[in-house]
Amino acid sequence: MSDTAKIRVGILGASGYTGADLVRLLVTHPNVEIVLLTAERKAGLPLGEVFPHLVGYDLPDMIALNDIEWSAVELDVVFCALPHATSQEVIKGLLHATGHSLLDELIVETPADLADSVQSEVKVIDLSADFRLRDVDTYAEWYGRVHQAVDVQKRAVYGLPEVYRNAIKDAHLVACPGCYPTAALLALVPLFKAGLIKTEDITIDAKSGVSGAGRSLKETNLFVEVSEAMHPYGIGNHRHMPEIEQELSIAAGSDVRISFTPHLVPMNRGELETIYVKMGASQTAADLKGALVSFYEDEPFVTVLEGAAAPATRMVRGSNNCVLNVFEDRIEGRAIIVAAIDNLVKGSSGQAVQNMNLMMGFDETTGLLQAPMFP
Amino acid sequence: MSDTAKIRVGILGASGYTGADLVRLLVTHPNVEIVLLTAERKAGLPLGEVFPHLVGYDLPDMIALNDIEWSAVELDVVFCALPHATSQEVIKGLLHATGHSLLDELIVETPADLADSVQSEVKVIDLSADFRLRDVDTYAEWYGRVHQAVDVQKRAVYGLPEVYRNAIKDAHLVACPGCYPTAALLALVPLFKAGLIKTEDITIDAKSGVSGAGRSLKETNLFVEVSEAMHPYGIGNHRHMPEIEQELSIAAGSDVRISFTPHLVPMNRGELETIYVKMGASQTAADLKGALVSFYEDEPFVTVLEGAAAPATRMVRGSNNCVLNVFEDRIEGRAIIVAAIDNLVKGSSGQAVQNMNLMMGFDETTGLLQAPMFP
Amino acid sequence: MSDTAKIRVGILGASGYTGADLVRLLVTHPNVEIVLLTAERKAGLPLGEVFPHLVGYDLPDMIALNDIEWSAVELDVVFCALPHATSQEVIKGLLHATGHSLLDELIVETPADLADSVQSEVKVIDLSADFRLRDVDTYAEWYGRVHQAVDVQKRAVYGLPEVYRNAIKDAHLVACPGCYPTAALLALVPLFKAGLIKTEDITIDAKSGVSGAGRSLKETNLFVEVSEAMHPYGIGNHRHMPEIEQELSIAAGSDVRISFTPHLVPMNRGELETIYVKMGASQTAADLKGALVSFYEDEPFVTVLEGAAAPATRMVRGSNNCVLNVFEDRIEGRAIIVAAIDNLVKGSSGQAVQNMNLMMGFDETTGLLQAPMFP
Amino acid sequence: MSDTAKIRVGILGASGYTGADLVRLLVTHPNVEIVLLTAERKAGLPLGEVFPHLVGYDLPDMIALNDIEWSAVELDVVFCALPHATSQEVIKGLLHATGHSLLDELIVETPADLADSVQSEVKVIDLSADFRLRDVDTYAEWYGRVHQAVDVQKRAVYGLPEVYRNAIKDAHLVACPGCYPTAALLALVPLFKAGLIKTEDITIDAKSGVSGAGRSLKETNLFVEVSEAMHPYGIGNHRHMPEIEQELSIAAGSDVRISFTPHLVPMNRGELETIYVKMGASQTAADLKGALVSFYEDEPFVTVLEGAAAPATRMVRGSNNCVLNVFEDRIEGRAIIVAAIDNLVKGSSGQAVQNMNLMMGFDETTGLLQAPMFP
Repeated sequence: MSDTAKIRVGILGASGYTGADLVRLLVTHPNVEIVLLTAERKAGLPLGEVFPHLVGYDLPDMIALNDIEWSAVELDVVFCALPHATSQEVIKGLLHATGHSLLDELIVETPADLADSVQSEVKVIDLSADFRLRDVDTYAEWYGRVHQAVDVQKRAVYGLPEVYRNAIKDAHLVACPGCYPTAALLALVPLFKAGLIKTEDITIDAKSGVSGAGRSLKETNLFVEVSEAMHPYGIGNHRHMPEIEQELSIAAGSDVRISFTPHLVPMNRGELETIYVKMGASQTAADLKGALVSFYEDEPFVTVLEGAAAPATRMVRGSNNCVLNVFEDRIEGRAIIVAAIDNLVKGSSGQAVQNMNLMMGFDETTGLLQAPMFP
Repeated sequence: MSDTAKIRVGILGASGYTGADLVRLLVTHPNVEIVLLTAERKAGLPLGEVFPHLVGYDLPDMIALNDIEWSAVELDVVFCALPHATSQEVIKGLLHATGHSLLDELIVETPADLADSVQSEVKVIDLSADFRLRDVDTYAEWYGRVHQAVDVQKRAVYGLPEVYRNAIKDAHLVACPGCYPTAALLALVPLFKAGLIKTEDITIDAKSGVSGAGRSLKETNLFVEVSEAMHPYGIGNHRHMPEIEQELSIAAGSDVRISFTPHLVPMNRGELETIYVKMGASQTAADLKGALVSFYEDEPFVTVLEGAAAPATRMVRGSNNCVLNVFEDRIEGRAIIVAAIDNLVKGSSGQAVQNMNLMMGFDETTGLLQAPMFP
Repeated sequence: MSDTAKIRVGILGASGYTGADLVRLLVTHPNVEIVLLTAERKAGLPLGEVFPHLVGYDLPDMIALNDIEWSAVELDVVFCALPHATSQEVIKGLLHATGHSLLDELIVETPADLADSVQSEVKVIDLSADFRLRDVDTYAEWYGRVHQAVDVQKRAVYGLPEVYRNAIKDAHLVACPGCYPTAALLALVPLFKAGLIKTEDITIDAKSGVSGAGRSLKETNLFVEVSEAMHPYGIGNHRHMPEIEQELSIAAGSDVRISFTPHLVPMNRGELETIYVKMGASQTAADLKGALVSFYEDEPFVTVLEGAAAPATRMVRGSNNCVLNVFEDRIEGRAIIVAAIDNLVKGSSGQAVQNMNLMMGFDETTGLLQAPMFP
Repeated sequence: MSDTAKIRVGILGASGYTGADLVRLLVTHPNVEIVLLTAERKAGLPLGEVFPHLVGYDLPDMIALNDIEWSAVELDVVFCALPHATSQEVIKGLLHATGHSLLDELIVETPADLADSVQSEVKVIDLSADFRLRDVDTYAEWYGRVHQAVDVQKRAVYGLPEVYRNAIKDAHLVACPGCYPTAALLALVPLFKAGLIKTEDITIDAKSGVSGAGRSLKETNLFVEVSEAMHPYGIGNHRHMPEIEQELSIAAGSDVRISFTPHLVPMNRGELETIYVKMGASQTAADLKGALVSFYEDEPFVTVLEGAAAPATRMVRGSNNCVLNVFEDRIEGRAIIVAAIDNLVKGSSGQAVQNMNLMMGFDETTGLLQAPMFP
């Protein structure tokens, strides 16, 4: 593909904050043309009416999912920023509708009406939780429903580039990690891979800005309820737990069970995780730090801070960066790892674009090199 | 003392946020007349010039510490809201200057110039850290200096009314707990007393509004640095750790070592602690909650929330209340306790007034029954 | 009435922010017992479930309006914090239901079923806009509907104590001013009464915290939309305009037409108005300030700041105070008046309590002397 | 100049918020290499230590002004983000030090030590107020000091590209407008040029985020003082007034005197101006809007909103955009114009980069097409 050729991109679910941040990143991506935006309640509107900060960009009006003509729109990449559960239905449907080659390997009988069509190769990048959990029983347990696209799920690649870069390059369907898992896994996977920390008593105390709760109308998201206030939520039962445990268990080579408690903080963006771990015998915080430095040496978006600098969300605001550091705990044999990301960028839309770059053979950092915005 | 008689109260260090909140609470206290306010850089000014929200109250102008005539001012109670280290010097000095009876028991030779004076009984309520640590070596280790008023320190009572109510009633000098220790101790002391939790692996992840950092001019306290941002600080070395450990060790009857990590959150007031503990064999989160409910049954300022309601700082804003709740941890054998206070009230000035009420024989809740301010 | 006797108070519409702030102020009012709270969607719940900061107070559960038994509840005072339009229907209904003496003077035929009942004297304090406009045509024009309680409206007194104190003392129905009108009128009425400013080109640029928008679920009130942002709204058509004009015209003795533009500011509470006026020939800003100082000399809740101190919302947070100051404008012949109030207190619930105190013969400041909360 | 060639850029005063935002914009500018950064108190540090969000970029360490070797550094462009008064001295000095051709026309005797040097052509973009005022007496009146570089001042071009584009292209020294003047002039210059509004009674009520106050340590900039609060400042005497008047007078062709009142709002970035004007006879708000639409038709960074949409700061956060709209005022013959910009971008660093693009012959929008960041 030439430097200037542009791929045709669609965003399903463009009227939420994740959709807005995808558009923010993609309108300056040199290889992308946005040709499809969907929304349900706000179908028919230009995006600039729903997000006035995007007035003036040359973007298609939003249409309802049911009004998409898959054959006509000829997408190269679909970002799916739909709610959980909806996502699996829609992705399954679009694979069928486009006679996707991915299905050939999965389904014995290709639908008759697709028999003659040319097999498409649209790449799907899902930002929902629908394809993150490898085990469908775990999915059923935590999401309270049977998975409706099990075969498709099996083909999904977990979209954490720092861990699964090669698999992502070849994937047709990438399941982008949740925001909380992204920070937790970037902090812990290298340590488990290196065998430096114990699987028991992993305690993740997470803090997030409010954009993570989406644009839905809930009393708890009103300015007056959130401003000058903070509180934990989902204590002991947040759905990001099994996702974190799945990936940590793979990295550790044995079952890991974590304690994870998220908190709502009065800020728009930003996510900070303070992680308490037990080290292996004779390990030190410096050993852990060394392992992270080494693991992320060549990574464009992960920085291990020098000295005792504490990661802060203001260091990554608006950017695809993750900053990490490791500290001695006062309790002997333990260490504290702190990770900060922007929940909407590395925790969501930015990582999705990073995955797109990998899947399409672009330089991985294309369109993602904005400096963080501070102030 | 009759219902309408008023005691004469002085506030040393009135120009900080703690001083301001003391004044806020005391100007409507029916038994108090503020007759002395001190400040150094702002000596000579009316308080309303430094804190315009207090314009219009009938208050004395601030004077410098050195300009106090202790014999003339005839105080019943002194609140000492001075910086650490300064506090011990000033309190020692005022005890001498007033020929305080507390000193008789401590000092063999009464200063000659006090020989004929009537012994005063001024009550001192210190809001600094100077008299909180019982062990002077621990003080020296964490504060980097030798304590200058060791004898006085021995007479100080730790001002957590829910634990030391009776001792406070008889005390001449009360050392008010730090804001972080207040929340941590209210959450944990009853559990240690009841033998329900283990002494190892106590992990306290604390979050505080910015007023806790005081009114000093530091770059890190500027609006632009704090707003839309959060970060941990003092990781592994915050001075509230030995204070928490001291009191938990007393409650547990054996040494407790904790992990404590505070975070700065973009809000003015409020403090939340998320505490991860290991339970004794066969204990459950419900047992822990039962113990807290029972311990605080008759306490006016501590509430254990019903059901799975999560404590939130907005529940206590501006009030002397503490709200608590207990949750099951996903890791077996562990529980999560969450505590919320207003760092400036129950964490500082409000608790100081509560102590004053006890020391002076007033109803403990006098002047402290303002409802929390939400929104 | 003895010092300790308590009146029976009801709050209609207790589940909004105005209701919450009424409760905050009334639970510590020494002469008040709250015996009735209503809510519609949240009927049946304890208030502490809707407003967790009010857990622990001894309050009746909320009931639906239709479930009130007016004869049984025996109220002395009703605060009506219902939405506009609803308010007039409900108040009309309660006057009938209680056989209110106010109606005798208004209605020729008393309903038969009330013929034998003793006439009640419940005092009604309405916080909606329903009874603020004296002219029913103006009401119809701005609210898009015919007033449904015209006769009752005629008996309402506009509840701005600094202007209508004596009338309020004798009123059965007080219509509390809107938050924006409160600040504007406190700033301008004395100047018009003294004939110091011109009726043309009054420009009021107003800024308000978000609690003024209420607890309703609108996208524009979400934290993420409001935080780190500000914008004007209702430009040229905000409903507080005719209310301000009505009262200024009375004060001026001739028609006043104003320009009024409100802005939404990312804070919970607080309202600031910057008002640009033309002075009469040979008048100066100092003359205007002198008139305000003189007018408010004995007022407990209005302060004209000294020198060039700029009113700030933080000076009045949580209190019933209004702070004012006057400045020279760079344009000759003009002056700038700045007013700050807490929109929920002096702009709403606090002023309602102030009115109650007047109507019931209590000291006007009872329950309203909390110092502002800063930080 | 080829597409890929990079100019050598220096930033004087890189440790303030303006400097940080210049760096944020320039590190992704395809034609720029930052080769010089200065700071005084923080000289010797890498920028990433002062602004941790900029860790990881390949930037020179900061040096003190006095340590610059002008001949060695070979700059093409200098951004001067120094404090007022300092700026004029430094710029005068650097012109001498580099033997700048600009001086040839100004100064009869070239310093001997420059006699043989090749005349440099470094372009200077000043972000201070030092070269904005054309009249040195006005400068002296408002800044309380005699201008120290009067000859240089005469050669400065006022850097508002929408008004002075051609002059900027040829300029050696551009004086970037203040943030408040930028918004005011974009709103009003076209209306004065078209003769649609009157010169009297121009009232500009401005609101700004806190980053405009810089990173200096003042009590009024502390988080606790600003959060949940707002107030006006500089009433009647803000230094941006003469600057606005200068440019409006030029546009109007006659003296314009304005009323301008800025307010501090609890947000990091963003500036909103609500401007009240009197229209010429028979003009309407629609006429004014038409004139703005026409004037800005081809402008890349100025948008006149459709319909009655109110400009909001969240529409421009982080971007170089300005959004405008016009509204009817309730007072006949008047209109309200609302303008929103990001004070650090279009109000400062972004506009400076826009000027650099013009001066260097780059496409005017290069490096400035980031979409606004919302949330």
